[in-house]
Amino acid sequence: MRAVDLIRKKRDSGEHTREEIAYLVSGYTKGDIPDYQMAAWLMAVWLRGLSNAEIGALTEVMLHSGEVVDHSEVAAKKVDKHSTGGVGDKTSLILAPIVAAGGLAVPMISGRGLGHTGGTLDKLEAIPGFNTALTLMDFRRVLRECGMSLIGQTAEIAPADKQIYALRDATSTVENVGLICASIMSKKLAEGIDALVLDVKTGSGAFMEKEEDATRLAEIMVDTARRVGKKCVALLTDMDQPLGRVAGHANEVVESIDVLKGGGPKDLRELSLELSAWMFYLGERSKSVDEGRGLAEEMVASGKALERLRECIRLQGGDARVVEQPSLLPMAKKRAEVLSPRSGYIVKAACRDLGIALAMLGGGREKKEDRIDHGVGLEFHKRIADRVQGGEKLVTIQYNSEAKLAEAQDLIAASFTIGNEAPQARPLVRRIIGG
Amino acid sequence: MRAVDLIRKKRDSGEHTREEIAYLVSGYTKGDIPDYQMAAWLMAVWLRGLSNAEIGALTEVMLHSGEVVDHSEVAAKKVDKHSTGGVGDKTSLILAPIVAAGGLAVPMISGRGLGHTGGTLDKLEAIPGFNTALTLMDFRRVLRECGMSLIGQTAEIAPADKQIYALRDATSTVENVGLICASIMSKKLAEGIDALVLDVKTGSGAFMEKEEDATRLAEIMVDTARRVGKKCVALLTDMDQPLGRVAGHANEVVESIDVLKGGGPKDLRELSLELSAWMFYLGERSKSVDEGRGLAEEMVASGKALERLRECIRLQGGDARVVEQPSLLPMAKKRAEVLSPRSGYIVKAACRDLGIALAMLGGGREKKEDRIDHGVGLEFHKRIADRVQGGEKLVTIQYNSEAKLAEAQDLIAASFTIGNEAPQARPLVRRIIGG
Repeated sequence: MRAVDLIRKKRDSGEHTREEIAYLVSGYTKGDIPDYQMAAWLMAVWLRGLSNAEIGALTEVMLHSGEVVDHSEVAAKKVDKHSTGGVGDKTSLILAPIVAAGGLAVPMISGRGLGHTGGTLDKLEAIPGFNTALTLMDFRRVLRECGMSLIGQTAEIAPADKQIYALRDATSTVENVGLICASIMSKKLAEGIDALVLDVKTGSGAFMEKEEDATRLAEIMVDTARRVGKKCVALLTDMDQPLGRVAGHANEVVESIDVLKGGGPKDLRELSLELSAWMFYLGERSKSVDEGRGLAEEMVASGKALERLRECIRLQGGDARVVEQPSLLPMAKKRAEVLSPRSGYIVKAACRDLGIALAMLGGGREKKEDRIDHGVGLEFHKRIADRVQGGEKLVTIQYNSEAKLAEAQDLIAASFTIGNEAPQARPLVRRIIGG
Repeated sequence: MRAVDLIRKKRDSGEHTREEIAYLVSGYTKGDIPDYQMAAWLMAVWLRGLSNAEIGALTEVMLHSGEVVDHSEVAAKKVDKHSTGGVGDKTSLILAPIVAAGGLAVPMISGRGLGHTGGTLDKLEAIPGFNTALTLMDFRRVLRECGMSLIGQTAEIAPADKQIYALRDATSTVENVGLICASIMSKKLAEGIDALVLDVKTGSGAFMEKEEDATRLAEIMVDTARRVGKKCVALLTDMDQPLGRVAGHANEVVESIDVLKGGGPKDLRELSLELSAWMFYLGERSKSVDEGRGLAEEMVASGKALERLRECIRLQGGDARVVEQPSLLPMAKKRAEVLSPRSGYIVKAACRDLGIALAMLGGGREKKEDRIDHGVGLEFHKRIADRVQGGEKLVTIQYNSEAKLAEAQDLIAASFTIGNEAPQARPLVRRIIGG
């Protein structure tokens, strides 16, 4: 087998065998196949696509390029959730404690924010002392002790994906459903889970803006998970506006704790409970999704979920007092407002631009190496279809540096469309795929 | 400007500006743009294509990545011919002396054979002592002294093409008309010519098998030459069977000399004269192609063309006695035959396979580094539409080593299709593009 022939095959729309994909990936990670051949193959894949069988094979090969975490000492079913990312999406911080408190284990390997999206690891690191860089051994220990653990990708987890992703990033071959699917699934399956709930975002703040693209990605991911014997369901959910009332890091931790205390904004609470319900169902902790929903509500009402979060923070080296004293979080002190230019209804939000505005203020990264400011944030006072008066506050900005404040304010102001009639409200969960 | 954005642009079917193409090519040759980004861009180009304007820009940028040879001390118009390659195609050895004898200058930078095709440099090197690796200074001197010189690509000529070609070869991005055109034309234009005649082959032994693909390549090359102010015409010619009666190296030199002596096979003589006629016409040595044809015939009949070849061989260090004594050429001594399995007519020849059989015997290369045997060859006794008896000789093989003889014999035997009716004869020159 020669790489140059496999590149030609994909270029000419051929379908690879499992052996061919294994040859490419292992050859690349061993250094036998150079970057330039892999880059040409990736572009051919981007333009010609991958079949579901190829995606399944790629996922498995990347998965087995590293370790699959062994949680055999944990009796409970292991269930995780993965979101394709958006603005203000903090459900992981809420559902992991709910599901752990309800008797399942949640071994969650998460990512960082990039571009306009936020990342779970960054949010957790707003908590003083919280260590997301546990070894796999400590990851397993924390999971054993409190039923949940949230860490970043380690060198042992799907190293082929790490190497290939860096190449995709430099060669404009990122946005392809097959490659995205294999990248996500190889990492998630390496967690040693039994089931996975996918939260595939769609809308102006989502990676896949169009519902049809998001649907296709969701279908492929569900298919791939099932090919390797994992239970999986995907919820197609709204990202036409930020989830919850705040976006940032410290402020999202506070909002998550609010939900675990029984409060918080309705959309965030609703989605967190719904995702938890599906996790209970797939993890065989409930006989139906509805029963799972009841269990999730009970874990919040009883305070058990909050207690579980406290325990996880402590076990991962964080200051668990933040749960009661949000002021311990490094919140930015300065405030600026963006006001509505006229009276009317919020018709549309360019949600991606809101994420970019947050990144501008220091709350996001342009490059992977960039440091972020956990204290900056945005508070959204209005949601789509809300009535607004001219001069009324749309967004409050929490910031530390004036550097790009004006630019961020302009972007935020421009991102809202105010009309004379309230638009039709759209459901938070648009579709359920594989349910 | 960033390479990653330009890759994305081409991936998404965008059209590059001249500046963008210059940025990519010069960045790549300077080492600022890594192989893997160029490889991804090349695959995007392969799949999305290049516009004529992009091809023109790429040609010019690659051309100016090196030197354009200055022949200002030669008063005559400089004219060259380029063939896209085939089996038994030896017209360069014939037309260069004809055109030089007729008063034009032919500064010819040629290539080597690769795969199933032969290369002019390899054929010339069958002549003892012939040096194809002249410096540009010696190249100019020989041209000045005898009106023709045939050398290989030097480091000064289109170095960007050399680097990009090597990458294309390793990434299955060779066969794309835009990239092929820019590669050929950047080298040919670096010769410092005024006009160029293209011999674009089509048929079972051609690089572009289908006439429509060959036509498209021809049109693009003519367009590109004219964009940079050169006269150009393309002849679309037959490569459904080998050109002339022999393929190899030493034997092709002999056959070329035969034509210059007024003999040789009809098809080879005909095409050589026709190409020479167009060169005279484009080089303004004749008022019409017909007049050019007359001049070409005169150069053969008078012996002036043969004399010119003798002089060129001598000036490039070769043994010019080969012109009178073919036995000085390193011809293989052993002979084997391939016989017709039955009586009938030659309906078809898998011409590419005949080239591959020759390569197997040592007369071609699989990799650029391979050495070739100048003495091996094939002699074709029958042409398409010829009547053949069962047991009659189809091909005589001249070989040195038995190693792959049986395999080559099988391939040659399988490459002829014998039918009961003679097929319609097809013209040698199928179309003239840009004439």
